[in-house]
Amino acid sequence: MNGDLPIGVFDSGVGGLTVVRSLRESLPHESFIYLGDTARVPYGTKSPATVVRYSLNNARFLLAQGIKMLVVACNTASAHAIPALQKELSIPVVGVVEPGARAALSATRNGCIGVIGTYGTVESGAYQKAISELRDKLRVAAEPCPLLVPLAEEGWLTGDVPRLVATEYLGRLHARFPEADTLVMGCTHYPLFRELIAEVTTDLFGREVALIDSGIAATAEVAHLLRRREMEAPGGVSGTLRVMVTDKSRIDIVGTRFLGEALTEVSSVDVTA
Amino acid sequence: MNGDLPIGVFDSGVGGLTVVRSLRESLPHESFIYLGDTARVPYGTKSPATVVRYSLNNARFLLAQGIKMLVVACNTASAHAIPALQKELSIPVVGVVEPGARAALSATRNGCIGVIGTYGTVESGAYQKAISELRDKLRVAAEPCPLLVPLAEEGWLTGDVPRLVATEYLGRLHARFPEADTLVMGCTHYPLFRELIAEVTTDLFGREVALIDSGIAATAEVAHLLRRREMEAPGGVSGTLRVMVTDKSRIDIVGTRFLGEALTEVSSVDVTA
Repeated sequence: MNGDLPIGVFDSGVGGLTVVRSLRESLPHESFIYLGDTARVPYGTKSPATVVRYSLNNARFLLAQGIKMLVVACNTASAHAIPALQKELSIPVVGVVEPGARAALSATRNGCIGVIGTYGTVESGAYQKAISELRDKLRVAAEPCPLLVPLAEEGWLTGDVPRLVATEYLGRLHARFPEADTLVMGCTHYPLFRELIAEVTTDLFGREVALIDSGIAATAEVAHLLRRREMEAPGGVSGTLRVMVTDKSRIDIVGTRFLGEALTEVSSVDVTA
Repeated sequence: MNGDLPIGVFDSGVGGLTVVRSLRESLPHESFIYLGDTARVPYGTKSPATVVRYSLNNARFLLAQGIKMLVVACNTASAHAIPALQKELSIPVVGVVEPGARAALSATRNGCIGVIGTYGTVESGAYQKAISELRDKLRVAAEPCPLLVPLAEEGWLTGDVPRLVATEYLGRLHARFPEADTLVMGCTHYPLFRELIAEVTTDLFGREVALIDSGIAATAEVAHLLRRREMEAPGGVSGTLRVMVTDKSRIDIVGTRFLGEALTEVSSVDVTA
């Protein structure tokens, strides 16, 4: 059923293009419509009620385009809005929090899992809850790392400033939870700092810490759901990507950094109309 | 006329509370209604069309509360939306760009003025135009300093990270325009870094650079307009402050930092309804 329809993906801004990149690599025959709510970005510092309202705007807009599945690429929106979205939509809704939690469970050896994310994601307790529900006796601690988002959008990915910022935040996590052997990068922007986070955690924790990219984990969940529900696109043809944003400012510069390929055609849309 | 009515002030978020602080110190009998559009903050990375739309939402909302004058505390909104606001509103509208430009003219000795601001403010050319129109042969260069906004909201006002960030941005300005003897802090967040900016500019330029706070400059313009139009509040009673935001997340923590006094009562409003 509906195999020909595209998969809708939304994010607060352009960070979710890292998830699209992973989805397109794994599922080359699927087509995607990406919606970045760049007119209201970021979500990570805003309240749950606001994030749920914006997420419903985005989901309704994508639904009207004709999609077979909705992927919530934004961790903050996944943390706050999945129940509201699943209640309203009849198509499958996949967030990044549960897949990220399951990937962390697969990676941990001692059951001690750290999570980094926005204020919204961390304060929601969504990862902490998702992880705790997977298995008894897992321990979790989460630390907000808000400045990594504007640093990624500015393209300050290496050098002293991101290193000092990452060391400050991860140092706070280490002080509270030195046992962690696995760290969930619970924000679409953080995989851009993957190498830096690996180096800083190794320094702080004195050993390698397994890094989980929730976007990549969500890709596996999407592939699994498409198969199980027999919703896969027919093979033989490459899928397409349509990118829509609510504000085009600097999208070419910033978007390309996240997608990993040139963003050629981007249309501007109003999701509140 | 209308002296009893409050003055409306809006900003993209809480940064404009630095302007309210200055207004209340200078005009203790005036009452103020402050609206922070925290559900859609920041404006500085968004396009002119989006910023004009949001500014009109905010202005209409404040107008419906009954105000005698509108102060646009946000530099980005002042840069893009003053003509649209003046066209729509019959009450006086005061932005921060023109007062900041005039204050810079008063301060400069050699006619070389630097401006720092958001992408939106810098790319609009509003300060460059306002300064150039004041007098012949003034020279201006502007540099975006976007990371100073999230650093201020996070409260990272001192230490290595803000110093490195300020040195990087102001170093770019110095490389292009070493003659500057005056620097306009063209974003409501920057006065929180006043001491740091003073130290870094002295180091880079090898002499003291005059720093202009556009919010303080706008306060003088508001006082002047109130007198000229005979709209001053009756004396004898202290003015009040009502603070409204479109999203309350972290407003108590962040808002108090900008206002310089405890933010006790904040109400949550929808300006798009």
